[in-house]
Amino acid sequence: MKLATLRDGSRDGRLLVVSRDLGRATPAPQAARTLQRALDDWAALAPELESLYAELNDGKIAGTLAFDPRECASPLPRAHQWADGSAYVNHVQLVRRARGAQMPDSFWTDPLMYQGGSDGFLGPTDPIPLADEGWGCDLEAELAVVTDDVPMGVDAHRARDYIRLLMLVNDVSLRNLISGELAKGFGFFQSKPASSFSPVAVTPDELGDAWRDAKVHLPLRSAINGRPLGVPQAGVDMTFDFGRLIAHAARTRRLGAGSIIGSGTVSNRGPDGGPGKPIGDGGVGYSCLAEVRTVETILHGGPKTPFLRWGDTVRIEMLDADGRSLFGAIEQTVVRPESAA
Amino acid sequence: MKLATLRDGSRDGRLLVVSRDLGRATPAPQAARTLQRALDDWAALAPELESLYAELNDGKIAGTLAFDPRECASPLPRAHQWADGSAYVNHVQLVRRARGAQMPDSFWTDPLMYQGGSDGFLGPTDPIPLADEGWGCDLEAELAVVTDDVPMGVDAHRARDYIRLLMLVNDVSLRNLISGELAKGFGFFQSKPASSFSPVAVTPDELGDAWRDAKVHLPLRSAINGRPLGVPQAGVDMTFDFGRLIAHAARTRRLGAGSIIGSGTVSNRGPDGGPGKPIGDGGVGYSCLAEVRTVETILHGGPKTPFLRWGDTVRIEMLDADGRSLFGAIEQTVVRPESAA
Repeated sequence: MKLATLRDGSRDGRLLVVSRDLGRATPAPQAARTLQRALDDWAALAPELESLYAELNDGKIAGTLAFDPRECASPLPRAHQWADGSAYVNHVQLVRRARGAQMPDSFWTDPLMYQGGSDGFLGPTDPIPLADEGWGCDLEAELAVVTDDVPMGVDAHRARDYIRLLMLVNDVSLRNLISGELAKGFGFFQSKPASSFSPVAVTPDELGDAWRDAKVHLPLRSAINGRPLGVPQAGVDMTFDFGRLIAHAARTRRLGAGSIIGSGTVSNRGPDGGPGKPIGDGGVGYSCLAEVRTVETILHGGPKTPFLRWGDTVRIEMLDADGRSLFGAIEQTVVRPESAA
Repeated sequence: MKLATLRDGSRDGRLLVVSRDLGRATPAPQAARTLQRALDDWAALAPELESLYAELNDGKIAGTLAFDPRECASPLPRAHQWADGSAYVNHVQLVRRARGAQMPDSFWTDPLMYQGGSDGFLGPTDPIPLADEGWGCDLEAELAVVTDDVPMGVDAHRARDYIRLLMLVNDVSLRNLISGELAKGFGFFQSKPASSFSPVAVTPDELGDAWRDAKVHLPLRSAINGRPLGVPQAGVDMTFDFGRLIAHAARTRRLGAGSIIGSGTVSNRGPDGGPGKPIGDGGVGYSCLAEVRTVETILHGGPKTPFLRWGDTVRIEMLDADGRSLFGAIEQTVVRPESAA
């Protein structure tokens, strides 16, 4: 099943059931008026949504809407929890290297996770407001799951049972604010402004065989200004699967329905095990500019690729084996906010 | 105006307007069925709630309920944002000293803030589930404000205009998980399980002259198992006022209505400027056990007071100048969760 949220002037929008080919959509029943409401009572409401989805795909619903991601908010326009892991430890290692910071060996066995802001996400095609280009604005292309209620202390295998939906993420990061902020010891805050999510959230069964071992075995495609940045395999080099990430989050407390748990920046090792992996050169490319700049520094003594600037456009998408978009595309332009103009 | 949330089986509960003396309550109108809904449209709904509050205080409403904090969830049973500052830098300095960590001078001028989990708060009289006593469970008695929508980049003075409500907080902390977690660089996660809030949230005008300079000029009372722990003045040694904390949170992104911004553990310097400040000894006492243990270590070479154990009870309250409870009391017992028994 595929779900999206239509902007309707309200804070939580209007839940839509979207056809598998992302062509048509129809409003969810009133009891599931918003995605949070559907998640709040998933066991009761999901069967009805699934029926509607089947009818929509079969062309049995009259008066459907053309589905347009530009009219959509993120599937959860705001959430009660956004917790982002760093499951691709290769990314952490590379980015730390760029900051001259060591990475402890424990990072390969104990997941890193930070609590993100969830009071307002950007929509999938919303501009990214950036007051100061000097902050070093970067994309981070990721996957995320949305959970049901998760009991405290759940183990990594049983945690998989609480995954309800999957989405793509652009975890916008302000690189030049990160070092100073992390040095203070309390984690990210100003360096992680609002994230955005794919137009559509999908149930795991939509991925077919590509969803196994609580990982998504498909490439995640990122591009900047129309030029490909990377196509790393999301199922490769993911040290911690989503069950493991959920269990980490739930070790000392329960998680509420609608919690979003992110994978961290999708990152594969280079083909020769080294840092270099430019796309089109037998490599798989990148899901953020920080890695590109780190590799440039390692190979050439300094970064050459700038961070995102006003007017730059980012695109993040995942295609199935037949080349069809699974989640719709995140497509955002960095802009100078009006208040700062 | 005073507001509370009655448990009614739903996730967000039912908003109550509570009388000034905390004796009686009446349900808010349907349009403001939950506190989040009221905050989502505060300008339109607050006047009606204020009228109801005036009538309730004047005894003009028939069929009111006796107000019982034990029937209440936290005013926001779940929220879209919980961001906790460390405005009482004295606390940070003491607790770091206990960990043998240095505190940079910049902490006196640049607020520390962490993003907390907001997907499910404990109610004001709910037990605190603790799976392992070895985690070092501690209270942190704090104040917090609830904001309206806050624009990105707001300055510290104008930020005050977006404060809608005040609450007390018990920011439950697992001290023995903190060092390891902060060393990883991504901030708190497992070391900060669900927080709880006072039974009642109040508008700033309820504090009268005690609310000035975006600080609360009253003592915050904490007790453990009926023995006083501290009565520090919340208006003293608060290096960053709530306007400053909000501006810090909103530097790179807007904040959504219903964002909760905490003060961090309320902490006064000792009477002689030194670390010792036992209550009843001319001192003001403490708002957490970590400070008690730090002072014991400084004065006696090691901590003597244990962290909270199963069965221990914590009470946090604030009285006005006439000795009346302003927010009702947080009163919680630490328990072994059933699943861990």
